[in-house]
Amino acid sequence: MANRDIFSNLSPWDHRYSLREDEFSSLSGFFSENAGIKYQGKVELALIEELAEREICPQKGVEELKKALDNLKPEEVYKEEEKTRHNIRALVNVLARGVSEEIRPYIHLSATSMDIVDTANILRYKKAHQKIIDPLFVIIIKLLLELARREKETLQVGRTHGQHAVPITFGFALAGYLDRIGRAREDCLKRSQELCGKMAGAVGAYNASSILVKDPLNFENKIMARLGLNPAPISTQIVPPEFLINYLHSLVVAMGIIADFADDMRHLQRTEIGEVGEFFSKDQVGSSTMPQKRNPINYENIKSLWKTIQPRMQTVYMDQLSEHQRDLTNSASSRFYPDIPIGLYLALNRLKRVLEKFSVDRDAMLKNLNLSQDLVLAEPLYIALAGRGKPDAHEIVRKLTLEAREKGVGLHEVLSEKKEIQKYLEEMTGEQKHILEDPARYTGLSREKTEIICDYWEKRMEEKQGEK
Amino acid sequence: MANRDIFSNLSPWDHRYSLREDEFSSLSGFFSENAGIKYQGKVELALIEELAEREICPQKGVEELKKALDNLKPEEVYKEEEKTRHNIRALVNVLARGVSEEIRPYIHLSATSMDIVDTANILRYKKAHQKIIDPLFVIIIKLLLELARREKETLQVGRTHGQHAVPITFGFALAGYLDRIGRAREDCLKRSQELCGKMAGAVGAYNASSILVKDPLNFENKIMARLGLNPAPISTQIVPPEFLINYLHSLVVAMGIIADFADDMRHLQRTEIGEVGEFFSKDQVGSSTMPQKRNPINYENIKSLWKTIQPRMQTVYMDQLSEHQRDLTNSASSRFYPDIPIGLYLALNRLKRVLEKFSVDRDAMLKNLNLSQDLVLAEPLYIALAGRGKPDAHEIVRKLTLEAREKGVGLHEVLSEKKEIQKYLEEMTGEQKHILEDPARYTGLSREKTEIICDYWEKRMEEKQGEK
Amino acid sequence: MANRDIFSNLSPWDHRYSLREDEFSSLSGFFSENAGIKYQGKVELALIEELAEREICPQKGVEELKKALDNLKPEEVYKEEEKTRHNIRALVNVLARGVSEEIRPYIHLSATSMDIVDTANILRYKKAHQKIIDPLFVIIIKLLLELARREKETLQVGRTHGQHAVPITFGFALAGYLDRIGRAREDCLKRSQELCGKMAGAVGAYNASSILVKDPLNFENKIMARLGLNPAPISTQIVPPEFLINYLHSLVVAMGIIADFADDMRHLQRTEIGEVGEFFSKDQVGSSTMPQKRNPINYENIKSLWKTIQPRMQTVYMDQLSEHQRDLTNSASSRFYPDIPIGLYLALNRLKRVLEKFSVDRDAMLKNLNLSQDLVLAEPLYIALAGRGKPDAHEIVRKLTLEAREKGVGLHEVLSEKKEIQKYLEEMTGEQKHILEDPARYTGLSREKTEIICDYWEKRMEEKQGEK
Amino acid sequence: MANRDIFSNLSPWDHRYSLREDEFSSLSGFFSENAGIKYQGKVELALIEELAEREICPQKGVEELKKALDNLKPEEVYKEEEKTRHNIRALVNVLARGVSEEIRPYIHLSATSMDIVDTANILRYKKAHQKIIDPLFVIIIKLLLELARREKETLQVGRTHGQHAVPITFGFALAGYLDRIGRAREDCLKRSQELCGKMAGAVGAYNASSILVKDPLNFENKIMARLGLNPAPISTQIVPPEFLINYLHSLVVAMGIIADFADDMRHLQRTEIGEVGEFFSKDQVGSSTMPQKRNPINYENIKSLWKTIQPRMQTVYMDQLSEHQRDLTNSASSRFYPDIPIGLYLALNRLKRVLEKFSVDRDAMLKNLNLSQDLVLAEPLYIALAGRGKPDAHEIVRKLTLEAREKGVGLHEVLSEKKEIQKYLEEMTGEQKHILEDPARYTGLSREKTEIICDYWEKRMEEKQGEK
Repeated sequence: MANRDIFSNLSPWDHRYSLREDEFSSLSGFFSENAGIKYQGKVELALIEELAEREICPQKGVEELKKALDNLKPEEVYKEEEKTRHNIRALVNVLARGVSEEIRPYIHLSATSMDIVDTANILRYKKAHQKIIDPLFVIIIKLLLELARREKETLQVGRTHGQHAVPITFGFALAGYLDRIGRAREDCLKRSQELCGKMAGAVGAYNASSILVKDPLNFENKIMARLGLNPAPISTQIVPPEFLINYLHSLVVAMGIIADFADDMRHLQRTEIGEVGEFFSKDQVGSSTMPQKRNPINYENIKSLWKTIQPRMQTVYMDQLSEHQRDLTNSASSRFYPDIPIGLYLALNRLKRVLEKFSVDRDAMLKNLNLSQDLVLAEPLYIALAGRGKPDAHEIVRKLTLEAREKGVGLHEVLSEKKEIQKYLEEMTGEQKHILEDPARYTGLSREKTEIICDYWEKRMEEKQGEK
Repeated sequence: MANRDIFSNLSPWDHRYSLREDEFSSLSGFFSENAGIKYQGKVELALIEELAEREICPQKGVEELKKALDNLKPEEVYKEEEKTRHNIRALVNVLARGVSEEIRPYIHLSATSMDIVDTANILRYKKAHQKIIDPLFVIIIKLLLELARREKETLQVGRTHGQHAVPITFGFALAGYLDRIGRAREDCLKRSQELCGKMAGAVGAYNASSILVKDPLNFENKIMARLGLNPAPISTQIVPPEFLINYLHSLVVAMGIIADFADDMRHLQRTEIGEVGEFFSKDQVGSSTMPQKRNPINYENIKSLWKTIQPRMQTVYMDQLSEHQRDLTNSASSRFYPDIPIGLYLALNRLKRVLEKFSVDRDAMLKNLNLSQDLVLAEPLYIALAGRGKPDAHEIVRKLTLEAREKGVGLHEVLSEKKEIQKYLEEMTGEQKHILEDPARYTGLSREKTEIICDYWEKRMEEKQGEK
Repeated sequence: MANRDIFSNLSPWDHRYSLREDEFSSLSGFFSENAGIKYQGKVELALIEELAEREICPQKGVEELKKALDNLKPEEVYKEEEKTRHNIRALVNVLARGVSEEIRPYIHLSATSMDIVDTANILRYKKAHQKIIDPLFVIIIKLLLELARREKETLQVGRTHGQHAVPITFGFALAGYLDRIGRAREDCLKRSQELCGKMAGAVGAYNASSILVKDPLNFENKIMARLGLNPAPISTQIVPPEFLINYLHSLVVAMGIIADFADDMRHLQRTEIGEVGEFFSKDQVGSSTMPQKRNPINYENIKSLWKTIQPRMQTVYMDQLSEHQRDLTNSASSRFYPDIPIGLYLALNRLKRVLEKFSVDRDAMLKNLNLSQDLVLAEPLYIALAGRGKPDAHEIVRKLTLEAREKGVGLHEVLSEKKEIQKYLEEMTGEQKHILEDPARYTGLSREKTEIICDYWEKRMEEKQGEK
Repeated sequence: MANRDIFSNLSPWDHRYSLREDEFSSLSGFFSENAGIKYQGKVELALIEELAEREICPQKGVEELKKALDNLKPEEVYKEEEKTRHNIRALVNVLARGVSEEIRPYIHLSATSMDIVDTANILRYKKAHQKIIDPLFVIIIKLLLELARREKETLQVGRTHGQHAVPITFGFALAGYLDRIGRAREDCLKRSQELCGKMAGAVGAYNASSILVKDPLNFENKIMARLGLNPAPISTQIVPPEFLINYLHSLVVAMGIIADFADDMRHLQRTEIGEVGEFFSKDQVGSSTMPQKRNPINYENIKSLWKTIQPRMQTVYMDQLSEHQRDLTNSASSRFYPDIPIGLYLALNRLKRVLEKFSVDRDAMLKNLNLSQDLVLAEPLYIALAGRGKPDAHEIVRKLTLEAREKGVGLHEVLSEKKEIQKYLEEMTGEQKHILEDPARYTGLSREKTEIICDYWEKRMEEKQGEK
């Protein structure tokens, strides 16, 4: 029963997206049922260690439980659950069979299921973040930082509404993403560190533990400390859901930034634009019927993963409501929350791969910029005129562009015929004239801002590295 | 690579919810990657059959491809995909290796990937609906029908806002669910039958097939007919998404009805209400720490599955937008649509199990009704008074109930002192007096309507059966 | 209190989007609170008419209530509600004051609030659909039909993944939208016609009416018939929610198609593509600082309205669950459902305006198609070769395109050097050769399918017109 | 045009929910179109002040613009927009007409529309939070704090799965909500303070301002400082969306906690439970047909507002993607984001009103607790037995409860017959025996934890008060 052809699995996580062994193993180490049970075992162990330290349970209980955990097989737990219909009681029964009769009563003692389940889950999210998600963020931030510096001089037209606006450099555009992802990473990390557990019993009021120990709050504190967690400030049967909601939200926001980036790159790869490219291997097929196609499949995949997991926040929000000391209408739904870190992890991994081989067609960027070269002049001309005090500067320039468009000539040409404007042009600073001569110079602080942002994140990453 | 411990899987579908072998096998037969590839093979076969019938491809092509499909192993396709980075080209390459060189060029000929993928997927949804989902609906409708008839006389207080309103019978409440599920079932079935496929090529304009055959529309028609499908009225690279959106919506609506039912039963099982119960086995554990608990875990699970899958409609709605003749930003997301039928199937199965052992505590229902017995009088009294033309009847009765509440006595008692009302009471019909004597008689058409609804669905189910 | 500067309003519906008087008045006639109360009055009137017909209420009641309704002012109802805290009881009290004392008890007699509210709302949705939404659909379908015919010969490159695929005609692309919107329109209309009301009392069991009349089902039927509605098959305090859910879903689906169209047009308007344009008036400003800009603001607005209203389905789905004979946790949320028809109406109106002045740049389409002219050859070449039985045709052509790309020459050129392929080329049909000479001819059935679809909808619209 | 009967408005915000003048005025001061234009004026003013300080614009420009802003009428802007089809250019034109010709060119100089719009909106959210939302949080936190202390001794049964679990005090349950809302308030406040603006021009690269001033970053900084804002670290045409997304999310999370509270209270108000009550005025009508009804309408309304606004986060998440330097597909959708703070504000206000008159029926709580008194014993008995080392304690107690249930007697009774258990009972501590005698004593740390939480928040609120 316990082994199965992966192609029989139902979820794309477990067939389609499980075939890069390194990715899958990393994820499975935290989000599989094996991992779930392993982490539940860690919590049971922390509990018995505390009971032993307080001499409630015999000392040998700790070693016995460790051994029982080493031998634990999920299929046994599931088999036991067929009888108990209760997964944690099943786990406890199986563990009890693995220890001596003397130790048996102390396993799980004073805990309610959710003390174990909630704490174990929180631990999984926190550890997975620390071990596999955050390191990927770090790599991507570094890759973006390098690319932004590399492309900081690369001219590109800025686009708003899909229309040419005024020039930037491509490095500047990348620096924008760098900063957004940098901040998102810090938010995710902070939210992961705020996750907390509980050992407060069936309704959160330490009813059971107060029968057993004199200092139930300290008892809880010490068990959590053994796991590297803080206890929730106050619980019901469950940890207040907001900590996890905020963490999952932070992941969804990070995913949105990546999807936004992917969407931009996807459009820059359009046949008519052609400014960036995904690496394309020699054997790769673009279409099963059109042999010439080169599709932005990695960026498409990233955007699609975003569409897959982002709406799942809705389930998380719905589960925020739990009647009284809890209902269990999140029994199934909360089991699917790992979809969110899984999807993000896969997207980050995919992004890493494309950024490592990121190709920019600088000629295409220049060619596209030149398409609108003359019209780009409109804004600096208006600013320069208005800055000199020319009334109705915006309206005058707007009409000049209409005239240029109608006549099919450049703005320069139309401009040269306007005597009343020439006066203002002559008064301009050298810098202003310089830009009006060649709109490609009209890039504002693109380079400087790129540097500022890159320097900031370089330093920031080093600091954070130092903190660890 | 292809075999794996199920407890290593990431998705609860593939560990937690995959252990009832019968459920899992049914689902896997339609929604696994094995099934995906198998159904893609069916479409490729229908294509070559048509090519052979038209003598474009040699006759033996059909048999050769059949054999190749019999031998097809998903892992081979995935291995080939590592090279092609294109799943359908990989499938075609693998199939090509399984046939003679002469036949090779005819495999997939004129088709674009999405002709195969979209058509195969549609076929899976349609067949899964017909084979495993609809039959469950039929069972549940019959169970509800029996229960509604069985409980048609069982007195229960109607509740609005969680407050006692006026009496119904429990069968009447069940008949409401019966009717809603009955209609939802028909909607799902209809929407599943409307699903359609395509063989219209890379941009939907039959470019490739028009090079190959003189009658591409008929060519498409005949291939679809071999698969039991209609072709889409017009396509791009993909079938217009609305057919599938409407189908998935119909499932989500059905799921909502079941969740509503589960939620009601959950509340009727509250300790203070206790009107219905889930079957509880002798060995079953309610809580790992509170041995006395009997939790409505099946209903909780059903509601939770609803919270799991309902928000996934959002992804489906988002994927409705696909640029021009299509983008591929639904590459990952659409692979998860089966979550919706999977979740519904599991919920229906769960519901079937609880309905089969559905227990009603009629005494508790009566006891609860009696809690408010006297106050329930308020409505018929008001109606009877107003129906006799008594001005301000509603206001008068409202004040009587306040008075009764303040004095802590029954409405009857307060009423007996009001001379000006007595006059109206005496004028009432026998039936009206009869009800005022015992509010438990104030159940309106609960019984009759239950019968009408049950008769309707009994007949309807027979008709539908006959149609098949 | 009752008058207010519209710019003080909170909702964009009531300031930003309320300034085209014709649009606003149409919507306000159905979805304002004035309309809400007016429609509730219609239901109260239908009830008293039936009571009068049955001689339960004196005949003059009907005329008295009609007059009271004519004089009804929403602010009076709201003022009364401050006292009653119950909106329908407030309405009934105000109406009662408008009739003689003799008639007073008969107003609202046997009805529960939700008999009035649910029925009135259903009536508003149904009428609004019939009067203002469906007619807009009809106009848009006709506009698309004309445009599709007009552009049926206009060559355009088909695009998948944002990459050039193979040619279509622009009319064919429009025909795809025509068909999708045509079907969506029919679905919306059907779902609006299925909406039904109720007069079944506080818990749906006709408790109150069964005290008053002998035939409560017929009583309900006749009241509904006066309003042009069917009664729900069975109710609780409320009409089963699925009818309205399905109707609102059908609107959201229609909105998605329009948004998809808008998104396509937006991209076709990109500076580098420039294939279509929105009408742009002489005084219109594209940007407050870049006088040359011409932005696709209408298409942006349509897509944005989609993003506004589509997620509101989530609220509708959540409200499907209502405890027992109902809870009132949809009290506020269901008041916002009209957001969905309002948003759709505004989007349809906007679409109508852009379609009426829809401009196509056929030269730009041709220029773009020519960008990839030679590569477009790849597919027909592959099909032609494979159709002749050439083994590995796809792989051969794929390599040819790589070779052409590397050498920077056309596919024709590379092809001319390949002797082993020439043989197959010579065997081709005249039609095939004709296409290979000029890929612009490779448009498949674009024209024919456009005609078929246009003919279908032309006829269909006439039939539907006839049905009315 | 500009005045309208509020009952003609479309949005419930602007009819139904706009009638408490104080609530509406507060909201309208930030979220109406009047407020929008007023805040845009503030940003234009800050810009001209900076231009004047730098002597780019004549000094009198500031006073002239102030006067023009004082005279500004939204309807004029809208009228101008009919011509320009661009709202900010319309505003600028109207303002220009209000100043001397000399000043005219300096209005809006170097800014792009979104510099004004984004910054003005951010300012509105931030100010509204500070002025009207956060103060309500403070009131509610104080009310909950008082109630938690007041009810800290009030015995109540803890409920999980809707089933009686073990006792708590009602104050403890309230303390849980206090802590969750306290934290949510701090998160909202922090997120509101992180909101930032921009004056970085059309594509975020300071193209225009770099033509005008030598230090565009400082120029932006100083303008933002005049408004009490920080500039975004880097922008495109718009401020990076994450700041606002995180702020709106924090509101939705706070709303979820309130909804959870409302849902609990709603259920505690069920007829069979009756533990808490909403204040009910003498004239208030519970049902239009059932005069005895007392419905939890305030809690229903709060939950319903949550269902209204929570899904609107979906729109916010979707708008996170904006192509290149921005597209405008958030033009309509982002205008509706204020729905989220509006809904929260109304819910908080409603909550405030119910908490101010919050009534608890302590007798009912005790009566309900006693329903399960004996069974509540199960947990402490199991803990006490296991804590003494009794093997299989859980299983033994589980069977005792089954036996008690079957025999219809108390657990004490069954227990008294079990000799082998008596031994363990005798060994228990005095405290343990004390609890076993009266399960109502089995409340764990309910009182202590309530005090700890209340003390924490009392101090925390004072500190925060001091910080201001």
